[in-house]
Amino acid sequence: MEGVDILPHERSKTQFDVDAMKIVWAGSRHAFEVSDRMARLVASDPAFQKDNRTRQGRKELFKNTLRKATYAWKRIVELRLTEEEAGRLRFFVDEPAFTDLHWGMFIPAIKGQGTEEQQQKWLPLAYKMQIIGCYAQTELGHGSNVQGLETTATFDPYKDEFIIHSPTLTSSKWWPGGLGKVATHAIVYARLITNGEEHGVHGFIVQLRSLDDHMPLPGITIGDIGMKFGNGAYNTMDNGVLTFDHFRIPRNQMLMRVLQVTREGKCVQSSVPRQLIYGTMVFVRQTIVADASSALSRAVCIATRYSAVRRQFGSQDGVETQVIDYKTQQNRLFPLLASAYAFRFVGEWLKWLYTDVTQRLQANDFSTLPEAHACTAGLKSLTTTATADAIEECRKLCGGHGYLCASGLPELFAVYVPACTYEGDNVVLLLQVARFLVKTASQLGSGKKPTGTTAYLGRVQDLMQCRCEVQTAEDWLKPSVMLEAFEARSARMCVDRAQNLSKFANPEDGFAELSADLVEVAVAHCQLIVVSKLRYMGRFRRGHEAQDLVSSYGTKSMSWIGCGNHEATTNEPNTYTFETISALSISGVWFIEKLQQDIPGNGVKQQLQSLCYIYALNLLHKHLGDFLSTGCITPKQASLANDQLRSLYSQIRPNAIALVDAFNYTDHYLGSVLGRYDGNVYPKLYEEAWKDPLNDSVVPDGYNEYIRPMLKQQLRNARL
Amino acid sequence: MEGVDILPHERSKTQFDVDAMKIVWAGSRHAFEVSDRMARLVASDPAFQKDNRTRQGRKELFKNTLRKATYAWKRIVELRLTEEEAGRLRFFVDEPAFTDLHWGMFIPAIKGQGTEEQQQKWLPLAYKMQIIGCYAQTELGHGSNVQGLETTATFDPYKDEFIIHSPTLTSSKWWPGGLGKVATHAIVYARLITNGEEHGVHGFIVQLRSLDDHMPLPGITIGDIGMKFGNGAYNTMDNGVLTFDHFRIPRNQMLMRVLQVTREGKCVQSSVPRQLIYGTMVFVRQTIVADASSALSRAVCIATRYSAVRRQFGSQDGVETQVIDYKTQQNRLFPLLASAYAFRFVGEWLKWLYTDVTQRLQANDFSTLPEAHACTAGLKSLTTTATADAIEECRKLCGGHGYLCASGLPELFAVYVPACTYEGDNVVLLLQVARFLVKTASQLGSGKKPTGTTAYLGRVQDLMQCRCEVQTAEDWLKPSVMLEAFEARSARMCVDRAQNLSKFANPEDGFAELSADLVEVAVAHCQLIVVSKLRYMGRFRRGHEAQDLVSSYGTKSMSWIGCGNHEATTNEPNTYTFETISALSISGVWFIEKLQQDIPGNGVKQQLQSLCYIYALNLLHKHLGDFLSTGCITPKQASLANDQLRSLYSQIRPNAIALVDAFNYTDHYLGSVLGRYDGNVYPKLYEEAWKDPLNDSVVPDGYNEYIRPMLKQQLRNARL
Repeated sequence: MEGVDILPHERSKTQFDVDAMKIVWAGSRHAFEVSDRMARLVASDPAFQKDNRTRQGRKELFKNTLRKATYAWKRIVELRLTEEEAGRLRFFVDEPAFTDLHWGMFIPAIKGQGTEEQQQKWLPLAYKMQIIGCYAQTELGHGSNVQGLETTATFDPYKDEFIIHSPTLTSSKWWPGGLGKVATHAIVYARLITNGEEHGVHGFIVQLRSLDDHMPLPGITIGDIGMKFGNGAYNTMDNGVLTFDHFRIPRNQMLMRVLQVTREGKCVQSSVPRQLIYGTMVFVRQTIVADASSALSRAVCIATRYSAVRRQFGSQDGVETQVIDYKTQQNRLFPLLASAYAFRFVGEWLKWLYTDVTQRLQANDFSTLPEAHACTAGLKSLTTTATADAIEECRKLCGGHGYLCASGLPELFAVYVPACTYEGDNVVLLLQVARFLVKTASQLGSGKKPTGTTAYLGRVQDLMQCRCEVQTAEDWLKPSVMLEAFEARSARMCVDRAQNLSKFANPEDGFAELSADLVEVAVAHCQLIVVSKLRYMGRFRRGHEAQDLVSSYGTKSMSWIGCGNHEATTNEPNTYTFETISALSISGVWFIEKLQQDIPGNGVKQQLQSLCYIYALNLLHKHLGDFLSTGCITPKQASLANDQLRSLYSQIRPNAIALVDAFNYTDHYLGSVLGRYDGNVYPKLYEEAWKDPLNDSVVPDGYNEYIRPMLKQQLRNARL
Repeated sequence: MEGVDILPHERSKTQFDVDAMKIVWAGSRHAFEVSDRMARLVASDPAFQKDNRTRQGRKELFKNTLRKATYAWKRIVELRLTEEEAGRLRFFVDEPAFTDLHWGMFIPAIKGQGTEEQQQKWLPLAYKMQIIGCYAQTELGHGSNVQGLETTATFDPYKDEFIIHSPTLTSSKWWPGGLGKVATHAIVYARLITNGEEHGVHGFIVQLRSLDDHMPLPGITIGDIGMKFGNGAYNTMDNGVLTFDHFRIPRNQMLMRVLQVTREGKCVQSSVPRQLIYGTMVFVRQTIVADASSALSRAVCIATRYSAVRRQFGSQDGVETQVIDYKTQQNRLFPLLASAYAFRFVGEWLKWLYTDVTQRLQANDFSTLPEAHACTAGLKSLTTTATADAIEECRKLCGGHGYLCASGLPELFAVYVPACTYEGDNVVLLLQVARFLVKTASQLGSGKKPTGTTAYLGRVQDLMQCRCEVQTAEDWLKPSVMLEAFEARSARMCVDRAQNLSKFANPEDGFAELSADLVEVAVAHCQLIVVSKLRYMGRFRRGHEAQDLVSSYGTKSMSWIGCGNHEATTNEPNTYTFETISALSISGVWFIEKLQQDIPGNGVKQQLQSLCYIYALNLLHKHLGDFLSTGCITPKQASLANDQLRSLYSQIRPNAIALVDAFNYTDHYLGSVLGRYDGNVYPKLYEEAWKDPLNDSVVPDGYNEYIRPMLKQQLRNARL
């Protein structure tokens, strides 16, 4: 079997309903339909062509992005797309642009931190794109440490203005997307100074460029900060540098929802809780986790399809073996496929967490904030690190051809990796999680009950003593066994590190000295969060788990997370609401069982279960040192876990192509010759090669000046 | 302390002689002097400027590379550089070009596989660059499986010619560097067919382009295969596609050193052993390991210097903490620094292995070949995978600014990663190592004594039972303890996997099913090889180790590897021969002690020892599951290893900058604003930004067409 026949043959082996899985992946039938429509709309419009992106020089690339982003906006207006549809359209256009920051940071910042009055003034302008905004926080000298920002905003009571100023070179704003060449306005973060006193870092709405001729206003210097990783990739974005020379703005352009500066220059705290900002962080990080599953699934889709098409070695009947049939390939690829699904569901669960946090904030209930903050910080770190590594692993899984831009993977990697750094450096975030865990552990004695994702620490006594019951490979398919192993590992590591910390006279010294160890606890805890999606597969293990949930999320939520009233989860047949999807992530297969009743989704549950176990067992193997050193499992049990993993690979194998088809990605979105839906890889790779500018002429530019004189031994007098 | 004062202050804390370490790193005073001279020559010549590389479009980039490569050749001729000097000059020019393949593959292939006559005809032309050669092996459909190549070379006895032909699309030659636009000739690998019979894959010298006008000869189609990963990077190279339409070459252009085709079309095996090809593989892989230490040390140098310059959080006296002082940073960075040194010494040791193999081949002694082959395959895989990961880790260690091309790290990553795939895919190579280990283990009973790097398997009975003696953190500083832990881990994993394999009726089925586990044994074995450099630090542990060495490498070699006659290692003061350097890698600190007697190298030994322990203990921590599951160490001992590791970080910390200064890299070679020798990072980053083409104009191209109509709400009739 060759080329275009392979993938149809693979698809014929599928053991589940791919259309049902597409809806599970999308989150709901509605979400699927919107995505599907937008994806086709983008793919069918030649204006959104992107396959020449990696060959373009910076100027040409950037100008094309301006065109596409503007055209996308024109289409959004023409077609009267909803906010949801517009978001999906931009997603499928798949090109970082100033609009990402305008919609994703500028507008939310005004909404979250602006007063009613400010929102009324600025939002209509922004919604119509009469102004284009960006988010100017990071500086040349400060990224993670926001409180260390150096830009100043000094109140001048005589003129009722703030003077925005860059006092040092390192205070230059540096990195903001959309700033370099496009944005007319920015939310600028600066140290507020009134009456000679500092009042911390706050946001200010600053007009940067003239709305007449787009020139930077007097006192403002702006430029692009230069090339970034990869061809195409983030070079479509004008990340910028910005300095202020005593630039003046009216007082009412400070975002004053939380803190107000009066006409006299006095600072007045408003009644709005400062913690509001955490709600925004939970929101942003939830979108980052969703993006992780998108990027990861895209890479996995490419690598899986190409692994089926590619043959190498091991002939049977003169035909070589499909690369996907090698266990070494499966052992690298299938855990990534499982991760893509796992992160998808965690992302949906985070959506629920965000609404929960928002509701509580509105009710002045700040009790769950620290836990929610630690949880989202940890999951942001875990999923983005894993995804960046996974994209590169997928590239390697495609062998030499993965190194060609035509594979789509180099650009995907280059465009994705900043996610490990922005919105919180991943290691810094893990340290925050570790700090929270250590604090939670230290308070256990005082009777303070851990909540939400840390609830298991309330059972630390049990978890220190429990023994893993696994005796056969099949025993690893018991959700309760798996979950307990992950809980025990995390809890025991937590206790162990807390004990080590207690040996230090100064806790801060101890935290600094042991920080590398503490990061590992944070990772263990975050992996547990993901794995815990498994815990309601099938049945409740112990009564106290339901109790954990009730105490964490309140009885009200319980009605739809699968513990109580099942009817509440589906409002009508074939319609999957936000709640049902959240339920999916928490109650796992229970939801899928519901789904199967509603649509002919046979086999979906089985596939998701296999993927869940692959995800967990692979983690167990990768972090075996943790599990063994804490005595959570024995070497024999570890070996049985490996046996089970191999068996799961065999179960997934015939469904692998269908499981990536379920992502419902168009060839346009994938942007990969290797990942083509039709599997017609080699002819298209060959065709693609000839499009390189070097092939414009048979004899290359430079032959006469360089190659020929060398061959003819006439270099002596050549001017090179 | 700010900017340019930081690194001088750091250097003032150094506890060892950096100049002595530079010589240790270079391998000898002579090697240091050559490298130093060539590096300065390149750095001081504006013709070799490369800081604009990532901003250039493909054509401009490629033409510039043609210019630089030609200019480099002109300088080599003008200055009458030796082969060694020319090699170093090309190394410091630091730009992949057709000359790499000409000197590194085309000429060696003719030397290794050509007859005397063929060498006399072709080598003089190649040495003068009257012809430019490339190496056309891989095809669109075949990379790893060389025996699966489809291009045919059919002997036509009537015309005494071979007909080179591409029978399928997938038989198109694909990837060869220098092929796309430059090479006039190629070594083409094709299936030899004479008298209707196949005789395997062989190499043929084929002229591709006219020496008059550079046009491809009739019957030959050539092009560039298109953009590859990253900006700049390997896009300076014209990796090519090539197809033949019944192209004819004279019979005497088949490389016939091993197999000859007579005038009648008969195949005649020559007296030259076929195993010669393995000698070439050992040679090529040795250079790859050397390249790994170069690339890794470069990334580490950038990340280390920038980590000292960068400050974030934690103010003391109003000054923030240097990032290099965070344990989380040290825990990621210092093991990479240690790896750079470790790989450097392993590379030197492989040089010795190559000469040993060559001498044995000449004496028709093939006994050590399988072991040498497995060893080099494994080390190629181990070092290139580790280096690729490490470069990306260094980029992340530089935070956001590491994502800028100005950091040098994106291009270094993109240009390095193919090393994981070319000359043997890293996973395929590990499977070869695993196969060899399993075979070696299976023959232990039959009395066949394992040699060289597998000699420890001869003591498998001891290693199955030995108990790690560590009781305090300091105990981990005993080389014998460390070595035994790594030997026991590898041996026990090997025995365990061999037992699992024996459960299969068909060994090949077992190998396929368990291949993922087997790869892990191969990794454990290869890590042991690197760690075993430690074993002659200080003293011999056991008499049988000297015995191992004698039996592996022969008594003759023993005279200079530090076991016997010490005087043989240095021929004259201040001159370090090839042998002494090999001795360094095997006898470790003993050599360094000698060195310290000769030059004032105080403190060098201490630093190298610390780095060795960091390398080994970090591996132990990363692969803790292996050590615990095989019972080689206890959880308590693992914890002590971690304590020791932290203590070593503190010892290395004040020397970190000097340890990367010892690489003696010029700012030109480093190509990184973040890694500048003077530490003047921020002003130069700022300066660099303005060079981007987007900053040619204040208002960007595209403003009038796209941005303005959007802001002015005039998109309705805009043509986009």
